[in-house]
Amino acid sequence: MPEPIADMDEIRALLSHLPGPDRESGSAAAARQAQLTKPAGSLGRLEELAVWLATWQARHPPRLEHPRTIVFAGNHGVAARGVSAYPASVTAQMVQNFIAGGAAVNQLCRVADADLRVYEMNLETPTGDIVEGPAMSEQECAKAMAYGMMAVEPGIDALAVGEMGIGNTTAAAALCAGLFGGDAALWTGPGTGVVGAALENKCRTVAAALALHRPAARDPFDLLRRLGGLELAAIAGAVMAARLGRIPVVLDGFTSTAAAAVLFAADPHALDHCLVAHVSAEPGHRVLLDRLGQRPLFDFGMRLGEASGATLALGILKAAAACHNGMASFGEAGVSGPA
Amino acid sequence: MPEPIADMDEIRALLSHLPGPDRESGSAAAARQAQLTKPAGSLGRLEELAVWLATWQARHPPRLEHPRTIVFAGNHGVAARGVSAYPASVTAQMVQNFIAGGAAVNQLCRVADADLRVYEMNLETPTGDIVEGPAMSEQECAKAMAYGMMAVEPGIDALAVGEMGIGNTTAAAALCAGLFGGDAALWTGPGTGVVGAALENKCRTVAAALALHRPAARDPFDLLRRLGGLELAAIAGAVMAARLGRIPVVLDGFTSTAAAAVLFAADPHALDHCLVAHVSAEPGHRVLLDRLGQRPLFDFGMRLGEASGATLALGILKAAAACHNGMASFGEAGVSGPA
Repeated sequence: MPEPIADMDEIRALLSHLPGPDRESGSAAAARQAQLTKPAGSLGRLEELAVWLATWQARHPPRLEHPRTIVFAGNHGVAARGVSAYPASVTAQMVQNFIAGGAAVNQLCRVADADLRVYEMNLETPTGDIVEGPAMSEQECAKAMAYGMMAVEPGIDALAVGEMGIGNTTAAAALCAGLFGGDAALWTGPGTGVVGAALENKCRTVAAALALHRPAARDPFDLLRRLGGLELAAIAGAVMAARLGRIPVVLDGFTSTAAAAVLFAADPHALDHCLVAHVSAEPGHRVLLDRLGQRPLFDFGMRLGEASGATLALGILKAAAACHNGMASFGEAGVSGPA
Repeated sequence: MPEPIADMDEIRALLSHLPGPDRESGSAAAARQAQLTKPAGSLGRLEELAVWLATWQARHPPRLEHPRTIVFAGNHGVAARGVSAYPASVTAQMVQNFIAGGAAVNQLCRVADADLRVYEMNLETPTGDIVEGPAMSEQECAKAMAYGMMAVEPGIDALAVGEMGIGNTTAAAALCAGLFGGDAALWTGPGTGVVGAALENKCRTVAAALALHRPAARDPFDLLRRLGGLELAAIAGAVMAARLGRIPVVLDGFTSTAAAAVLFAADPHALDHCLVAHVSAEPGHRVLLDRLGQRPLFDFGMRLGEASGATLALGILKAAAACHNGMASFGEAGVSGPA
């Protein structure tokens, strides 16, 4: 990873510089929707998405020709506690699978015509075990957030963000409990598929990490540093950078939404440029969406991560933009309006 | 329209010849899903869709390279009763819009890379006013169903079916009440956007049509003839022909689902090869989905018809097939299985 461009306090300070909605572009989009050859409002959520894209791209008409999917991969010290159904070595193996084109996200990017970038973050060096101490030092966390920021390049029309990291639903559960309260059981779920005694162990692990860090943490960013992980910090950074670059973001499942939720906990408008693609089968995701006031696009019982749901949602955004930009108006088409 | 290839009784008889599921292809798909590089079941509904495609295409691996969207357009005598927010002339105008490429479904087909075919059905001659008598004669209904059957050509991997017809949510509401019981108010909604006194008038119109035809109708097909319309009959025919041709079908909103529901009412397995894309904002659709035991893919508050929701769902089917066919297995990718 490159040297950090900011320390944690500089990153905290960035929050107050996030641009707001471009209401002019949003209004232009809403005005155009009313002219298109369909009963007003009859494309429902697709109309809202077109207006949302224009508002957060700060551009009318909105554009969705160059969507990008980013997957950050990291390893977690806590994985050694048997919190996942898979060994930690699977993180690096799956990164190779992404590179070889064999994972779900590769196929989904092909269908959505989205550019895929995968960033592996020191996979050979897991973060600290959150039951024993913080996942990251201040500097490590800042570096990972800056890395995530730098992954957001100009020219992207919408960004789908996701993650790969054995053990990271444990980190995400602890982080959510730290950010929003509630006990470990509210936020801990099967992840890759742990059940029974293994799930109880995972839940106890989350509770122990919380007991250690919740009293000591001074703010949401500090909770991220203590309970999160490299890929979670990178996602939080990427979501901030996208806002600064006027790039709407599609969040994926429980872990990526938890990473972004750090920003929400620090500023409830920090995720206004984000849409959550779907509600994951990981039970904590529904709780988290409720806390964030997010209305996901679909509920397919997916729980894979790797930006799979977010990338699937890019296709829906493309459809929304295509209808908005390509449909004829009543006048152009010679179609009568309401009687 | 060409001459009918069947009379109504011949069409009724076809129902007993519909092929069942190909469980061998479905099992092969399920077995492959278990080998792919993801936790078992973690693609949720996408996995189910891949198995469903294989089962009803009777082929493994399933294929979704040539999806097609079909829109049938018809006019309704009952439209003269002010049941729509739009004049009946809009049906033909929208057909011209489809041909010119300016409608929502054109943009959605482009995004899904689906072939679009639009069939206009004697737009200059509306069906009979269902408050006064039957919409169609036996022969007209058989002809329209046969027309719909002939629109289903070989080589289609999945079929999205939809409709355009000012007044057709009135016909669909009456048809649903005839097929499944319940009063007019349960099935009647705003359609293109009628509210207040106009909606009350629409509801009274449905009730009057029901009072005339429900006691006299001898079976679901007779209800279709009496209360439906040309495009509804064509959809019912297309859905049957697709089953015979091993083509999975994606139904759209209230009207197209109501048309297909005729087959369900005659044989509860007749729609096993059909998926309903979405739940429409038209309130009767949710009631109808419940009667059919259908679980729609998404709920975007859409209520446009013209196969818009079904075509959007084709993109999701493509994603399901792409993951199924393109992902590496654990063995191929050298990824460890569960510990």
